[in-house]
Amino acid sequence: MTFQDTLKTYEDWKFRLSAYDMALSIINIDKLTVAPPAGAAFRDERTAFLAGEQFSIQTDPKILPVLAELKNSDEADPDLRKEAETYEKEINKILSIPKEEYVAFEQALSASYDAWLEAKTKEDYSIFAPHLKGMIEWRKKLYGYRKSSLPLYDQMLDEFEPGTDRAFYDRFFARLKERLVPLIRRVVSAEPVDESFLYLRYPAPLQKQWTNEVLLPYLGFDSSWGYQNETEHPFTSWTCENDCRTTTKYVEDNLAAAIFSTVHEVGHAWYEHNIDPKYDGTILSYGVSSGMHESQSRFCENYLGRSYAFWEANYPSLRMKFPKELSGVTLDQFVGAVNASKPSLVRTEADELTYPLHIMIRYEIEKGLFDGSVDPDNLEEVWNQKYTEYLGLTPSSPSEGILQDVHWSDGSFGYFPTYALGSAFAAQFFRKMKEDMDVDEALRSGNYTACIYWLKEHVQKYGARLNADEIMRSATGEPFNPDYYLDYLEEKYSLLYHL
Amino acid sequence: MTFQDTLKTYEDWKFRLSAYDMALSIINIDKLTVAPPAGAAFRDERTAFLAGEQFSIQTDPKILPVLAELKNSDEADPDLRKEAETYEKEINKILSIPKEEYVAFEQALSASYDAWLEAKTKEDYSIFAPHLKGMIEWRKKLYGYRKSSLPLYDQMLDEFEPGTDRAFYDRFFARLKERLVPLIRRVVSAEPVDESFLYLRYPAPLQKQWTNEVLLPYLGFDSSWGYQNETEHPFTSWTCENDCRTTTKYVEDNLAAAIFSTVHEVGHAWYEHNIDPKYDGTILSYGVSSGMHESQSRFCENYLGRSYAFWEANYPSLRMKFPKELSGVTLDQFVGAVNASKPSLVRTEADELTYPLHIMIRYEIEKGLFDGSVDPDNLEEVWNQKYTEYLGLTPSSPSEGILQDVHWSDGSFGYFPTYALGSAFAAQFFRKMKEDMDVDEALRSGNYTACIYWLKEHVQKYGARLNADEIMRSATGEPFNPDYYLDYLEEKYSLLYHL
Repeated sequence: MTFQDTLKTYEDWKFRLSAYDMALSIINIDKLTVAPPAGAAFRDERTAFLAGEQFSIQTDPKILPVLAELKNSDEADPDLRKEAETYEKEINKILSIPKEEYVAFEQALSASYDAWLEAKTKEDYSIFAPHLKGMIEWRKKLYGYRKSSLPLYDQMLDEFEPGTDRAFYDRFFARLKERLVPLIRRVVSAEPVDESFLYLRYPAPLQKQWTNEVLLPYLGFDSSWGYQNETEHPFTSWTCENDCRTTTKYVEDNLAAAIFSTVHEVGHAWYEHNIDPKYDGTILSYGVSSGMHESQSRFCENYLGRSYAFWEANYPSLRMKFPKELSGVTLDQFVGAVNASKPSLVRTEADELTYPLHIMIRYEIEKGLFDGSVDPDNLEEVWNQKYTEYLGLTPSSPSEGILQDVHWSDGSFGYFPTYALGSAFAAQFFRKMKEDMDVDEALRSGNYTACIYWLKEHVQKYGARLNADEIMRSATGEPFNPDYYLDYLEEKYSLLYHL
Repeated sequence: MTFQDTLKTYEDWKFRLSAYDMALSIINIDKLTVAPPAGAAFRDERTAFLAGEQFSIQTDPKILPVLAELKNSDEADPDLRKEAETYEKEINKILSIPKEEYVAFEQALSASYDAWLEAKTKEDYSIFAPHLKGMIEWRKKLYGYRKSSLPLYDQMLDEFEPGTDRAFYDRFFARLKERLVPLIRRVVSAEPVDESFLYLRYPAPLQKQWTNEVLLPYLGFDSSWGYQNETEHPFTSWTCENDCRTTTKYVEDNLAAAIFSTVHEVGHAWYEHNIDPKYDGTILSYGVSSGMHESQSRFCENYLGRSYAFWEANYPSLRMKFPKELSGVTLDQFVGAVNASKPSLVRTEADELTYPLHIMIRYEIEKGLFDGSVDPDNLEEVWNQKYTEYLGLTPSSPSEGILQDVHWSDGSFGYFPTYALGSAFAAQFFRKMKEDMDVDEALRSGNYTACIYWLKEHVQKYGARLNADEIMRSATGEPFNPDYYLDYLEEKYSLLYHL
């Protein structure tokens, strides 16, 4: 084959793959937002078939030599070589697993998820415990096929955040613990910030109206390339640069919930929207890692969305939408309330300051599960002890304790740490952005997208073309340093709580 | 192959086909409701590829002998034989056309649609005229491949409403003309019914709230199997018994628009929902003909939805939703207004009484285009003359005249007549239903679905298993008779206009 023939084979393969990606993504968004549940069985059977078609294309034996050739060809430009290399790595991971194992694992996943849901509903961890042990065994087995010399949990960490391992996260969390635990202690002893008015009754249709008419336009989420729907668990999805879908959930007794979930998800959407369109439909057209993706959404949610300047622009219209509930609440009080910190038991409801402790607990447990120092049979006690130790609170039921998250039901060990890492990445970007531009002035004057433009140019446009470390160095001129994050939290919370 | 092998091959083929049907249907619904337009080019390219995959399965050369065997096998039950026969007929239609002709036709379609849109926007029929002539030539060519001995327009009529031809429709429209034209003349001379209050300003969010909270539940459109979204041109779509999607459009200066479009589309949805689930995912799981489908939606819209009893149940809540606009409007006045008749120029805005004349005009023109008595170069004049003759009104611009409908831009000749036929079918079902049950009492007491149940048992459950004539005879005990329709209109409008 000439290089041109190879390229044509590759382009054709990639196009077919992207067609199934698109179809499966739209079917999934539809399922999670509007599809009638009674049709699920009929649809799911057919969706599984289409996923199988996609799998067959992806693992077509003819494609590996093509990728190998492109990866090393002098005629291929660096983007193309990187694309080919990234596809090859992914496909080899999949191909390492025997097909019958893959099918058995899919069945175990489904049973594990069901058991988790049942256990959570019945407040009985023992229903889920054997499945969690099963998932640990499954992950050991599946990673085992890769024949990597790395210890197991290091492989898992690297899977979600390439380049990281336990040594990296140990240093990261040790530093967090060192500075955060005393800070939180001081906040807890300080005069609390009033946030009670956030929990009055805010009718969903009014919240939605304000979101669609004020917030989304302010965020620059343009209906020509994005659409926000509603769902139980908010998420972001996309098919190409010009098609990003977000979802949110309106909670009537919590005004902040949908607002910050919207700013967060639209942060994810901007990332994908701003990836160079030359990667559209390829494996490089994604955020480069879980941590980097989360850094962009948390940047928008916390560093921009919870700032005073953001609410200088947006609070007047929110107060007009809810005149009765917010008439006596000043801008200062409102911004204080959406930043208030109080140790709590449920990660997804945690504030910006205590959130990383929730992650640290999960990291320590995951690490223990794979180095043998945590016994899965004893997990509930370990969980509760750690919450008591780090947050001063003990779960009174499994649903607000060990069973609160879905992640372990599908064995996604190694994922949680990226949540804290994302917040810390964001702090370092934030510091640099503030050197380059007047962030507050941009937010105050309705020019939110000027901040997004900075993120695009320094982080987002690369997609998965550069790795997280390369992006961090190129954007901020130095390697990742968690102290920027801790400085930011100390400064912010000292001010808010008059410490 | 044993019969069991043949059956397995067939089941597998049918399943794969239904998976692509589902995917393409969901992608299309997404596109027409929420998909960001800027992503259209990326998605459309991939959608076309998936449609090609579906086409390859559909026309797989190995399937025709399988269908031929099943169609004639003693081991196949009558449902299966009917399925196989129906698939075979459809596939032979497709296979009769050389592939390159098919591709060229698709391109001509797209150009014709664009020209129609441009002509309508610029109010210049001459932009579209050559494309319309092109479409006529294309249809002649494509039908020509079928090598049928029937005249061309008869083949087209039979395509949309199997079993019909010009002789059938000539009799039908002659009868309509005979009795409707004088009736409309009398209505025009009578004291007009006040409908002005329907055209005040009714905010879309309030209309939507009432539709979702009152109307859809009343219609029994259950969110477990159905979902209504919004779109520019309302439509209904479905993937299986338990997944029906409708759309509507809220028009702020027309209270009736979304209400009756909702009742209409949910009528289509009920038809598909009520088809025997044993046909799910097969070619029999559709309405049997355009006319029969339209009979079910118009039954719901006009025979049920515009009745006094329907509004006895629903008007009080509508008036509460719009107290200012409707406070002085009695139930009698409201029902009168939604049934008011006045000749108009645009088909989609026509009332129940004058609607069939719009269809008759289109039928006469289509017939003339194919028997040579109407010259496409002269079409605008012919159109305007017929409107002046039948409706007493002359279009002042092409957009409210010859260019108002999209149907001819894709050469869907033979489709329009089924709209009038559907209304007439519905009248005959209505007469029988009233013999069997107290329709008004059901509507008045919120038991709308009792009427739907009658339609299910007598019409809908058969899907495409029985033809329209078989359904009509089995449901009403006699062949189709348009006089029931004319009796209904005469009685209704004589009463309303005190004739």
